[in-house]
Amino acid sequence: MALEPQIKSAPTPVILIVEPYGGSIRQQNPNLPMVFWDDAALTRGDGIFETLLIRDGHACNVRRHGERFKASAVLLGLPEPILEDWEKATQMGIESWYSHPNAGEASCTWTLSRGRSSTGLASGWLTITPVSSDKLAQREHGVSVMTSSRGYSIDTGLPGIGKATRGELSKVERTPAPWLTVGAKTLAYAANMAALRYAKSNGFDDVIFTDGDRVLEGATSTVVSFKGDKIRTPSPGGDILPGTTQAALFAHATEKGWRCKEKDLSIDDLFGADSVWLVSSVRGPVRVTRLDGHKLRKPDNEKEIKALITKALG
Amino acid sequence: MALEPQIKSAPTPVILIVEPYGGSIRQQNPNLPMVFWDDAALTRGDGIFETLLIRDGHACNVRRHGERFKASAVLLGLPEPILEDWEKATQMGIESWYSHPNAGEASCTWTLSRGRSSTGLASGWLTITPVSSDKLAQREHGVSVMTSSRGYSIDTGLPGIGKATRGELSKVERTPAPWLTVGAKTLAYAANMAALRYAKSNGFDDVIFTDGDRVLEGATSTVVSFKGDKIRTPSPGGDILPGTTQAALFAHATEKGWRCKEKDLSIDDLFGADSVWLVSSVRGPVRVTRLDGHKLRKPDNEKEIKALITKALG
Repeated sequence: MALEPQIKSAPTPVILIVEPYGGSIRQQNPNLPMVFWDDAALTRGDGIFETLLIRDGHACNVRRHGERFKASAVLLGLPEPILEDWEKATQMGIESWYSHPNAGEASCTWTLSRGRSSTGLASGWLTITPVSSDKLAQREHGVSVMTSSRGYSIDTGLPGIGKATRGELSKVERTPAPWLTVGAKTLAYAANMAALRYAKSNGFDDVIFTDGDRVLEGATSTVVSFKGDKIRTPSPGGDILPGTTQAALFAHATEKGWRCKEKDLSIDDLFGADSVWLVSSVRGPVRVTRLDGHKLRKPDNEKEIKALITKALG
Repeated sequence: MALEPQIKSAPTPVILIVEPYGGSIRQQNPNLPMVFWDDAALTRGDGIFETLLIRDGHACNVRRHGERFKASAVLLGLPEPILEDWEKATQMGIESWYSHPNAGEASCTWTLSRGRSSTGLASGWLTITPVSSDKLAQREHGVSVMTSSRGYSIDTGLPGIGKATRGELSKVERTPAPWLTVGAKTLAYAANMAALRYAKSNGFDDVIFTDGDRVLEGATSTVVSFKGDKIRTPSPGGDILPGTTQAALFAHATEKGWRCKEKDLSIDDLFGADSVWLVSSVRGPVRVTRLDGHKLRKPDNEKEIKALITKALG
């Protein structure tokens, strides 16, 4: 009798409760309920999150994620995250994750919620889960993307909104439209998820949101184009969430001699580029192979670009 | 020694888990965690809700809430809610609620979430909680309101969007922008809550969102104006969530001889009205006493209007 091929068991998700005011960090059993019925994350999507890549035993691009986490908290009027605690919890989670023999790359999500209405106290937790095989396949083979209107427009003309949504709150006298939470990475992602489901049910892998001819961002990623030695991304802020991976790429690539620029991009610019990428923390660099059904050329330097972005994340 | 005044204890919240596919309806202890770490309501605000008023032992305006709940589910691609189960659960919850000697008016929230990513199954629950003393006071004394841009505009020009966001999905060949979840009452309410917090920290009680001079809606309510025998509300759909209380009012008031119209309203129209109201299920009819700091006149028929709206809810 031949041996059955051995199926590797995946590690169990690691969940840690992180007290937002500097209390304890403690493990939560993923097989038990965790959140109370009156937590604002649940009842109103009223919270913020960051998703970090865990690779080779460490979390990538932690500083930028921490900065955006703090900026999101300010925009929503949440208590300032104690980043040392989040980093400590992340380290504890990583140790727990890698105690499993089959642990590979993972996704670590930090969540800070306004918390329970009955206590008035914020709540926080982090989760560590495997990078899905879908994401790994897209990283390898690229994605076919549809462009689409987002269905709404941010009123970017409001005074100060550009800086506020770029996280540059110290430069704004007071937040101009404090309920305009678009610059924060909030839990209100239902529309983005719906766009992704629609794309998939129509044979695409992903969506790039556009405003007329102007390119905005992916549903869960930042758009970056390469042409010669130039790297471009639509200017973040306003209706484009600043991307931590894009920021890391630009810092690292500039050092390596690339010419990086944040500037409006049109759909035609994408078709005219040497290559177009969707970048995000966990999925990493993913090349757009088709745009609205049209094949995009495969660049000679695809491996070099992947290595550049991977390196940029540390 | 004089007797201390007896402090009435409030009823404990009633929580019922409602299996969305027609399974069991069961009580949840509000003092224990309820939701798992990977529920989409929690991780993405990916779910819908309705809030009903419980009064005199019954739920008000149930049919309209049920219809909007179903329309929201269609817009988000959630399994169609089995309304008989939700109504049965509501009835069970009401019985449990009124078993407490101090039970008064209550707020009943139905929530349907896309559910756990690890199971792929939707999850649902309802909660019954007391109507807060703040809401009761506003019902009695009215609210001082600020107007404000919402910070974003819905692209209402997209084909079919008007009907889709009015819940008239049968009239639309296919949903035009399926990720445009604005017509659904989703859990993504963080921005509305932030607007309310801002208003309160600036001495107001509530917000009316405007688009230029055009009146849209309250942060959690529908705007209705009275002038002579005319009742007006901004046309729902697109960037205005159809209001169940407004719809009940219009149906009932039309029967009683009022002339009701859904039509664009300007801020000047509000100042020129006999009275302006924010209507919603639980808080009920609340008169706007001041708008952007300007006193609005108190109408002679305030009591009559309150009675009309209260009656309309059944």
